Formats: sequence, structure tokens, C-alpha cells
Amino acid sequence: MNIYDVSKQAGVSIATVSRVLNGNPNVSGKTREKVLAVMDELGYTPNVFARGLGLGTMKTIGIMCSDSSDPYLANAIYYLERQLRSHGYDSLLCCTGPSLENKRAYFELLLSKRVDAVILAGSKFVELIDQDNEYLISAAKGLPIMLVNGFLDAPGIYSTVCDDYQAMYDAAGRLLDSGRDRILYLYTSHSYSGLGKVQGYKDALSAHGVPVRRELIRQCGKNLAASKALLEELADSGTAFDGVLTSDDSLAVGAVKFAHGRGLAIPEELAIIGYNNSILSYCTDPEISSVDTKVEELCVTTVDTLMRVFDGVEVPKKITVTADFIQKQTTNF
Amino acid sequence: MNIYDVSKQAGVSIATVSRVLNGNPNVSGKTREKVLAVMDELGYTPNVFARGLGLGTMKTIGIMCSDSSDPYLANAIYYLERQLRSHGYDSLLCCTGPSLENKRAYFELLLSKRVDAVILAGSKFVELIDQDNEYLISAAKGLPIMLVNGFLDAPGIYSTVCDDYQAMYDAAGRLLDSGRDRILYLYTSHSYSGLGKVQGYKDALSAHGVPVRRELIRQCGKNLAASKALLEELADSGTAFDGVLTSDDSLAVGAVKFAHGRGLAIPEELAIIGYNNSILSYCTDPEISSVDTKVEELCVTTVDTLMRVFDGVEVPKKITVTADFIQKQTTNF
Repeated sequence: MNIYDVSKQAGVSIATVSRVLNGNPNVSGKTREKVLAVMDELGYTPNVFARGLGLGTMKTIGIMCSDSSDPYLANAIYYLERQLRSHGYDSLLCCTGPSLENKRAYFELLLSKRVDAVILAGSKFVELIDQDNEYLISAAKGLPIMLVNGFLDAPGIYSTVCDDYQAMYDAAGRLLDSGRDRILYLYTSHSYSGLGKVQGYKDALSAHGVPVRRELIRQCGKNLAASKALLEELADSGTAFDGVLTSDDSLAVGAVKFAHGRGLAIPEELAIIGYNNSILSYCTDPEISSVDTKVEELCVTTVDTLMRVFDGVEVPKKITVTADFIQKQTTNF
Repeated sequence: MNIYDVSKQAGVSIATVSRVLNGNPNVSGKTREKVLAVMDELGYTPNVFARGLGLGTMKTIGIMCSDSSDPYLANAIYYLERQLRSHGYDSLLCCTGPSLENKRAYFELLLSKRVDAVILAGSKFVELIDQDNEYLISAAKGLPIMLVNGFLDAPGIYSTVCDDYQAMYDAAGRLLDSGRDRILYLYTSHSYSGLGKVQGYKDALSAHGVPVRRELIRQCGKNLAASKALLEELADSGTAFDGVLTSDDSLAVGAVKFAHGRGLAIPEELAIIGYNNSILSYCTDPEISSVDTKVEELCVTTVDTLMRVFDGVEVPKKITVTADFIQKQTTNF
């Protein structure tokens, strides 16, 4: 039972039903009465979120991000704000930092401001322990929560995600197809997106009959110095690798610096793949082959989906966007 | 005549006067009457902006930035939001893009939201033509306008700037002292900050008795590909240069790529200096010597100054922060 059923039964457009729901005066009295009668007849209760176009809304969306100085998230904020603006909505920004305590506090703060919805930018807002997500699941009963590249299966929570699993499966597959069989996987976090990526890497290895080696799956800090230091430590300890697949471009930059320091030819002796195709992947010589995770498309889709939720239209719980592999100079396929 | 005079005459602290102005109940009736009597006696009119702690405020600050996906501005937004939050203020974000028309439209929009102040992040908001700044000067009669790294001399407009002139004068001086005498200057814009930088370069040359050559002062797009292409064009046309001084790290990255492409030794054959000391300056091999423009200090000072304006305290129209030169691998001094 949704707005479509009302529209069909009343013989009017969805836009008209939406106008009636939102008290828009641009509907004739006769039409309004017909729509209301059909709603009564069908026992239709308007979606609690279908108020975005109504009166009494702040027309303000809260955006939470863990760190706007991260290049990926900085881009996300830019695209989210721009798309919200194009729909006449303001953006109330909160940079939460990584701690769950701050995320919860800022979330409460946004709710107290009576924002119309909250957008959580980046995959760091879905915690691995279910009860740590309870504050989101519970709040989503009162207003829509939009996840950019995170997923939580609960009413009122809508996700737009990049298919990180498939992207990493494909990237690892390219390295394997080109004859690499000791591919180091460097990652920064166990987020929703992080878990999909490492699974893609593992499944690609298995599909190619290459063993998954624990010593080749390494976590490191999200900066190029940490990544370079880790690779040096691994090399010094005799761990061999002929490819480096990373969950973020910054780690791939560290890998390029490691190869330069050791005099390794890129990509002949060491192939390197970044992730996010950010400006960082263009700064190095050679430039880093990377995965374009379509941050603009993710953000535009997130906002457009939110507008449909406000309109009372049923939308999928999860929309998946496909990444592109951008071949540059650190791989040879 | 200001809050200090009232405090002195009434024999109470400035904080107490501020509490009286803001209707804070945490003041005894006797003290309140004394302060109000002194104000009458002195003919003191509270600053129109001294309402930040009062009732009826939205406790919301508008932040305008021309492009939050620029690494420098992304950092600025992060620090501004964090510092505003620490004072209990929300941040309403607007990414305006470069056009004056949009800047004006977004500024009007923020005013219509009844924000308590507007912070303009980055030097792109001060236009070269005076009348193009009229909308800011006029609005500043009604609410404080804070410029981060821009300057406009008008009542109600407060600036926190990095001393770009001195920073560039020093950087050029270092190159000149090390024996370079054909230093190419690459810049992106004629903003307030941009004008200070080029003047610093010119004055350093003059102070060293080196002629300022028109063909060595070049504008280019703010991206590494544009900078690399420009250097190649200059080299191909026979323009000689032994140092490259840039107004942004992205241009310096392009210079490193140019040198790699031509087989030039860095810094022996070509010294390179970036600006902003962003993550980009750490991505290349060799890493780029750059000017740390103290974005965090600029942003914290901007917000703290705004809080003092709200408290009715007199503050300087312009606070200047000194940059640091960060020696890395593209210079040898």
C-alpha cells in the first residue's frame, strides 16, 4: 500500500497525491476530496517521511562525515551539498571524527535541530557490532537516514553503495590474469566497504586457484608514510610480493615510494593499484592505476533517492553503483 | 567607547558585562542594575553583533567556500566546523563555485536563514573590482563577516590572513641565495592572497638585484596537468629557468613531472617550491619543499575572533599569521 495505489485508484498523478499530502494549495477542492476519500477507503497512512515538500519543515539536511579533510569525503560533501541545494535544501555539516561516542553525540545534536533527514557520508558510520548501530536504527523510525557507501538493513535507512566487492574482485583478477601470484592486499579499516573489498580480493584469488595467504593481507594507517614503512618491513622480513592492491590511493602512493626506494621497476617488478582514483593517484611518477568509485554518482543518487522518500515514493533499500577501473602506469595488462 | 569602558567604570569583569548584555540570568540584580546604569551614563550602545550568547539566535554560522573538494579548503572547512562546534555553533555549508553571481545568491540565501555570521573560506571571495564587494560591505552592517585569508577594509568585516607576501618573499629569497637567478613564478589567481604572493616574489628579486622578467611570471590552471603542459611549452620555446616557485602545491607537482619527463635533476638542475604544504607535496618523489600556510591556526583564530565579536569585545580588523617554510627534497639550501 503506497502512494502509487492511491494515485491509481483516484485516477490522478502521483504528483497530485503528493501535493494533497503536503497541503499544497495548487490542487482543486474536488480533486483533494477524491484523493482523501481514496486514502480513507484504502486505509492509506502517508509515509512518515513524506513531508519534505510540506510546510513546517526546516528544509535542512544534516550531513555527518568522519573527516572532511579526507579527499574522498571532501568530494562527497561537495557533491552532496550541491545536489541538496539544487533541490532547495540546506546542509548542516558535522565532522564527527572516528569515535562512536562523538558520532552518537553529533547525531543527537542534528536530531535536536529538527533536520529533515541525516546523510552519513562514508562507510565509517556502520559499526561491526550490531548494538552500536542501534541509535541509527531507532532514529530511522522518525526520519530518513541515508548512507553513502554503507549499508544497514533497517526501516527508514536507505543506502547507495559502490560495489566495492566487485571492483576489488576485478582489480585482483586483472593482476592475477597478468601472471602475478603474490599480491599483497593493504587496507585501512574493517568498515562495511572495507569488508567487501577484502572479500573481493580473496574470492578472486580462490577463483584463480591461488592460495589466500594470511601474511599478504595487512592493515595499515591511512597515510603514505605508514604504507611505505609497512612494505619496507615486509620486504626486510623476506615476504615476497609482485603486486600491491590497496583499499585507498594514499596506500598506493606509499607503495610507489617503496618501489622507488628499493629501485624496483614499476610495473614490471611491482604492480600497484590504488582505490578511489583521487588526485593523489595522479601525483606520482608513474601515475597510479586506480578504481574510480564514482563518488559524484553515489552522492547525486543519495540525494535524489532522499527526495523520492520525501515524496512518499517507494524506493529500494539499497542502490548499487558500479566502479570503473582506470588504467594508468602502475599496471600492465 | 566599548565594553571595556563599561567594565572598568562599573568595576565588574567584561564577562559580567557580556552576561548582562545577553540577558544571562547568572548575574545578581544589583550587579545588573549597576552595569545598566553605567551604560546609560556613558551612552554605551552595545555592538550590534553582541548577540551570539543571547536568546533568539540560531547559533548557526554560514560557511561559504568556493570548492570544498580543493584540499586546502577541505581542511579549512574541517577546522572551522570543529572550532565552531566547540563553541556550540552549527555550520551551514555552501559550496558556491567560482562565479560572483552564485556567491551573491548563496550569500543572500544564508542571510535569509538568519545565520549569526558568515565565514568566507579562502581568498576567492574578495573581488578585484570594488563594487563587486558591495554586497558584503553592505551586509556587514547587519552581521559579522569573517574572511579566512582574504581582506576587505569595512566595518563588520574581520580578516585572519596568512602573510603570503612575506612567505613568498622568503621562499624566493632562499632560491636566490642559493644562486638561482631565473626563477619562474607560476600562479593561479589574482585573489587577495594571489596578489600578495606575486608581490613577495617580485620584491625578493629586486632586493637581490635580479631583474623581474615578464616572461617568467605565468598564470595557469590549478591542476598539475596544466602546470606540466605550461612548463613544457616554455622550455620548448627556449625560455630558461632554474627554479619554479608556485602559488599552489598542485602546480609544483606538475613541475616535478615536467622535470622527470625532461630528465632534469631535482633540485640540482631545477629547484621547485610548492605552497600550502598539502598532502600533494608529500606524494611525489622527491617530496616537494613547500610553504605551510597554517590553515588550522587561521581557522581557529577566525572562529575565536568571531566569538569575541559576539561578546562585544573590540577585536583587530585583521590578524596576520606567519607561514613556515618546510624544507623537503626539491630545494637545496
